[in-house]
Amino acid sequence: MAQKPSLPKGVRDFGPEQMFKRNYLLNTIKSVFKKYGFMPIETPAVENLSTLTGKYGDEGDQLLFKILNSGDFLSKTETEDYEAGAKALAKKITEKGLKYDLTVPFARFVVMNQNDITLPFKRYQVQPVWRADRPQKGRYREFYQCDADVIGTDSLVCEAELMAMVDEVFCKLELKDYLVSISSRKVLEGLADVIGATDKFSAFCVILDKLDKIGLEKMLEETKALGISDSDLERLTAILEIEGDNISKIETLRKTFIGSAVGLEGLTEVEDTLNHMNSLGVSQDKTLFDLTLARGLSYYTGIIYEVKPTSVKMGTITAGGRYDNLTGVFGLQGVSGVGISFGVDRIYDVLEELNLFPSNDLASTKVLIINFGDNCLAHALGLATRIRKNDINCEVYPEAAKVKKQMSYADKKNIPFVIMVGEEEVQTNIYTLKDMRDGEQRKKTMLELIDYITNN
Amino acid sequence: MAQKPSLPKGVRDFGPEQMFKRNYLLNTIKSVFKKYGFMPIETPAVENLSTLTGKYGDEGDQLLFKILNSGDFLSKTETEDYEAGAKALAKKITEKGLKYDLTVPFARFVVMNQNDITLPFKRYQVQPVWRADRPQKGRYREFYQCDADVIGTDSLVCEAELMAMVDEVFCKLELKDYLVSISSRKVLEGLADVIGATDKFSAFCVILDKLDKIGLEKMLEETKALGISDSDLERLTAILEIEGDNISKIETLRKTFIGSAVGLEGLTEVEDTLNHMNSLGVSQDKTLFDLTLARGLSYYTGIIYEVKPTSVKMGTITAGGRYDNLTGVFGLQGVSGVGISFGVDRIYDVLEELNLFPSNDLASTKVLIINFGDNCLAHALGLATRIRKNDINCEVYPEAAKVKKQMSYADKKNIPFVIMVGEEEVQTNIYTLKDMRDGEQRKKTMLELIDYITNN
Repeated sequence: MAQKPSLPKGVRDFGPEQMFKRNYLLNTIKSVFKKYGFMPIETPAVENLSTLTGKYGDEGDQLLFKILNSGDFLSKTETEDYEAGAKALAKKITEKGLKYDLTVPFARFVVMNQNDITLPFKRYQVQPVWRADRPQKGRYREFYQCDADVIGTDSLVCEAELMAMVDEVFCKLELKDYLVSISSRKVLEGLADVIGATDKFSAFCVILDKLDKIGLEKMLEETKALGISDSDLERLTAILEIEGDNISKIETLRKTFIGSAVGLEGLTEVEDTLNHMNSLGVSQDKTLFDLTLARGLSYYTGIIYEVKPTSVKMGTITAGGRYDNLTGVFGLQGVSGVGISFGVDRIYDVLEELNLFPSNDLASTKVLIINFGDNCLAHALGLATRIRKNDINCEVYPEAAKVKKQMSYADKKNIPFVIMVGEEEVQTNIYTLKDMRDGEQRKKTMLELIDYITNN
Repeated sequence: MAQKPSLPKGVRDFGPEQMFKRNYLLNTIKSVFKKYGFMPIETPAVENLSTLTGKYGDEGDQLLFKILNSGDFLSKTETEDYEAGAKALAKKITEKGLKYDLTVPFARFVVMNQNDITLPFKRYQVQPVWRADRPQKGRYREFYQCDADVIGTDSLVCEAELMAMVDEVFCKLELKDYLVSISSRKVLEGLADVIGATDKFSAFCVILDKLDKIGLEKMLEETKALGISDSDLERLTAILEIEGDNISKIETLRKTFIGSAVGLEGLTEVEDTLNHMNSLGVSQDKTLFDLTLARGLSYYTGIIYEVKPTSVKMGTITAGGRYDNLTGVFGLQGVSGVGISFGVDRIYDVLEELNLFPSNDLASTKVLIINFGDNCLAHALGLATRIRKNDINCEVYPEAAKVKKQMSYADKKNIPFVIMVGEEEVQTNIYTLKDMRDGEQRKKTMLELIDYITNN
């Protein structure tokens, strides 16, 4: 009779160990968000479909999870609606959907709360989103996004501070080997300008973006197919081969970009951002001005950046950029901003692979008091209360099970200290403390216990 | 062209101020959960409908939010499925739904992870759930539940510790005026036994549960209509009028309950729980043994309890009890447990009404550095980094706006300290600190700044 329970494809449970690790990761990121003045908001999982559809392209629309209207959802439909097919019927029987990302709901939030928001507005948001994607390794249908954005100012200080936050987050996580690639959409536009591809900008970016995968030769071939002349291709090759540190690269490019106002503007943006980063003490050796970086260009309008680990094979773990007009689609013009998104699932995998999660901190309970039965229980409970009053996480084993079983519970839960409260202990008020790390037993008064546990 | 954005009925955004308050509330509860050895888990928002349906009664089934299958959801349907109506069609076009509570997904989790779980298993879970209820004041369609359960042991130590947790949570929240009502289903069964209502237990409980609302006379009238004799009604009245403290009430009832084994067992359960609570140092003056308490009896099998504030008009803010067979419906027998659920929306409203949220702690940013333009910016950014390295949340205003505008930003964000870094400050390395609380300006070196901010 009983059903075998299962989970839908692409969604996950998180048990205690995963939760401790995820909380360590998310709390680290949140603490850095707060340190830079970002404030949390949350928006509901469920949004009106009118808020969501048309914001993510046709493909995105198809990946929205739609919620069936409650009650008699067919009451306003006719047989012909059914016969018109799924797409048409869906419009009549669904009004709500699950949020697809954090950005569109944030834009909706800003518009609905525009009278209460002081600009510049710095918000962070750490919440799950849902996509009806085909599940595969590392891609889920329900997953957390972890975003911070500053809206309402054009200042490149924001870009630089986001980079400082990247530095601080990965420093705190002890993830040392990573590279931040930074550029600007305007640099790409300049590049297109100087090789005569101004009117083929999008197509050129798509090709350039594949450089890593397909190599220089193939990239040039595809660029040529756009109708770019051989001399322009040579110019492109020369530009891509510019060597040197970020600042000298910018200097060299400035000469090449003469004649492209937008390109020069892009170079100044990158330079200013790098200078602000310098003022903020961000080490420059992990930052690469990469003029082939071409991410999210349907969306970003200024500085763009992405972070990849260098000692683990893994794609982009953090990315973002500056955009114009976040809220235009909801009728509020002129709100620009810059944001960052930490890819927590991928960062989790990287920390796991590099063994960077702090294993000792994962044990939540510090003390287990062994239960020796009714005669000792009241004393044990009183002791637990005293220990807890010292802000020490403590459990009393709820049953007078065999000591071996209780010890094994402590062991499995990674509890570092076990206290025996048997009849002798109750009489003498001297307790036996077992330190599970060295296996040694020590006799201690209550105050000595608390002192030992607090300082070990 | 632009659409006016809106939110679906019954769901909410949480802006920064609400988030700070909610986080204060939720973090307080979580810290107490951890102090007693509970470990966090999370389950997905999206579950298979086969997991959810049939678990909450017919009414519950109707309140489930169902997710439309992806892609061509009509491909496996015929016109006759459409004609069979919404209920029949829903079965063919939906397979997943949003979780309705945390308990059923927890049961599923336990069954699916039974080989990895050490019993007794203490878990807490703080996540949103969804119900297609009619929205009204204080009732939402998406809301957080905040549950802790111990499964795999019958020990009443668990019940007592849950009560100690209630004590500690509300003590930390400085909510002093509340009453914990405690009883046992078995006490109610005993009561039914001694008035000859053993075979009318459910109906009797429904009536008893209304005592508060309808008064003694009406309650007796309805009980009489069940076929209870006048002498039994007199006995019932006498029992309900028993006065005295909890322990003396139990003593008195013991004599009355002679002849009802289950009733006597219930009294012993309550007494043992109260004694354990005493050992744990839980003050008894907020605990009332209330033998009219009749909550969740289709579900709970042992101790039951609920918490109500006494200085604010508000229903139950926290409740729970012991249940048999959590996981039986998923094929795993013999897993009993006891749980507690903190009603965070109601507790939030109570704290708000009593003005118990700590207002000063809500400001996340401690320092704003005023931006005096390009000549001073690098210095300001460097100072921000030094301040942040001391774990002080700090912002640099991103633009060289008018000082008045920047000060007003600090004011609106409740930032307590403002530092001026103008040309004079850059030259002398003596900064002007404005304490927004007393309005005074003080000249300080960097180390003095950090010292002052840290200690004020």
